[in-house]
Amino acid sequence: MSLVRVHNFSVSLDGFGTGDGQTLEQPFGHAGTRLHEWFFQTRAFRAMTGQEGGPFSVDGALADTWDGGIGAEIMGRNKFSPQRGPWEDESWQGWWGENPPFHTPVFVLTHHPRPTLEMEGGTTFHFVDATPEEALKQAREAAGGKDVRIGGGVTVVRDFLAADLVDFMHIAVVPIVLGRGERLWDGLEGLDERFAIESTTTPSGVTHLMFNKR
Amino acid sequence: MSLVRVHNFSVSLDGFGTGDGQTLEQPFGHAGTRLHEWFFQTRAFRAMTGQEGGPFSVDGALADTWDGGIGAEIMGRNKFSPQRGPWEDESWQGWWGENPPFHTPVFVLTHHPRPTLEMEGGTTFHFVDATPEEALKQAREAAGGKDVRIGGGVTVVRDFLAADLVDFMHIAVVPIVLGRGERLWDGLEGLDERFAIESTTTPSGVTHLMFNKR
Repeated sequence: MSLVRVHNFSVSLDGFGTGDGQTLEQPFGHAGTRLHEWFFQTRAFRAMTGQEGGPFSVDGALADTWDGGIGAEIMGRNKFSPQRGPWEDESWQGWWGENPPFHTPVFVLTHHPRPTLEMEGGTTFHFVDATPEEALKQAREAAGGKDVRIGGGVTVVRDFLAADLVDFMHIAVVPIVLGRGERLWDGLEGLDERFAIESTTTPSGVTHLMFNKR
Repeated sequence: MSLVRVHNFSVSLDGFGTGDGQTLEQPFGHAGTRLHEWFFQTRAFRAMTGQEGGPFSVDGALADTWDGGIGAEIMGRNKFSPQRGPWEDESWQGWWGENPPFHTPVFVLTHHPRPTLEMEGGTTFHFVDATPEEALKQAREAAGGKDVRIGGGVTVVRDFLAADLVDFMHIAVVPIVLGRGERLWDGLEGLDERFAIESTTTPSGVTHLMFNKR
C-alpha cells in the first residue's frame, strides 16, 4: 500500500515550523537556521548539498528515513519559492539548483499554475491548483505504487493532517521559543488520538516524534 | 542564593499548560488528566495523595526535585480555586484538603485579597494583589533564605518568565495536541537564549526539559 509520509519536519517548542517573514535570504524567516541545525550535521544533508562524510548519528539515522520508497512529493508554493501571488517571472526553479534532491515528480500546490519544469536527476516540478485529496490522487498515480512524501511547508502539512491523509509523520522538536511564524498544530486538537507516537531525545537536544497512523 | 524554581510543569505538544474550561470537576478543563498521567504514576504523587509505594522511575526522580530546599510558593488564583472574580464565599480552602502538600507559606496572587488561611502541616495561604516582583519579595522574606517555587498556573509562570525572574524551570512535554486552553510560550520569543536547556524523553513518552538560567 502506498503511504503518505512527512519527514524531518522541525518545529520549535511553541510549535512554529517556520519563522516570520520568509525572504530569498531567509527561507525560514526570523528563525534563520535554528530549526535545522540538527539536520545540517547529518550525512544525509551533507550528501544532499554535495559535501562528503560527517558522523553517523542518531539524528542522521532518523533523517535518513526520508528517502526510501518515495515515488513522488507534494509541497506548497512557499516551500518552492519566496514569491507570493502570480509569478513575476518563471525563471525561479526552486531553492535546490539544477539537480534537486527529490529525483521524483514533485507536485507544487499553487493557485497560479505554470508549465511543468523538468530538472536534472529525475525531479519534475508540476504546478497544480488542487485540494489535498486531488493532489494526492495525482501524486499517487505518478508514484507508481511507491509512497508519497508531503514536503511542507507548515500549511501543507497541516492541511493534509486535517484531512486525515497522513500515515506517518516524523517531527523534530527543537528546544527554542520562536514566538511567531506558522504554527503546525493549529486546528489539530486530538491529533494524537489518531496516531501511535514514539518520542526520543538525541544528544543534539532535539526530540524526535514518530507518528504512525493507528 | 535563593533561587526561583518551576517544577513538574506539563504542557502539550502545542504548548497548552491547561485545557479550556476549568471547573471544580475538571481543574484542567477539557485536558482532563491527560497532561498529568505521567505524574500520577510517580511515588511523589502517590505519597502526596496518601498512597504508598509505586515504582522508582525516571519520571519519578525528575518529579522529586520539586521539593528540596523550597521555603515558599507563589501560585495564581486559578491554581488555588475554580472561582473567578470576587470570592463568593471564603469556605474554599484549595484543592488539597486540610493538609496541603506545600508545608510552607504560599502566596496566592489575586485581585481579591482575603484573610490568611492557616492549614495543617505548615501550609499558610496568603492572598496578595501584587506584581511578580512584589510577590517574590514577600515570598523571599517568608522563605528565610530558601528557594521560592512558582507553582503555576500557566499565566503566573508566563508572567514570571516574561519578567526574567525564573532561575530554573522543569517542563514536561506530553505528546498530545490539546488545541485550546492557556499557552505557556506566548510572548516569550527567544526565551531559550536565557537558559541552558537539557532534554530527555522517558519511557512514558514524556519529554522533560530542564531550563537552567545562564
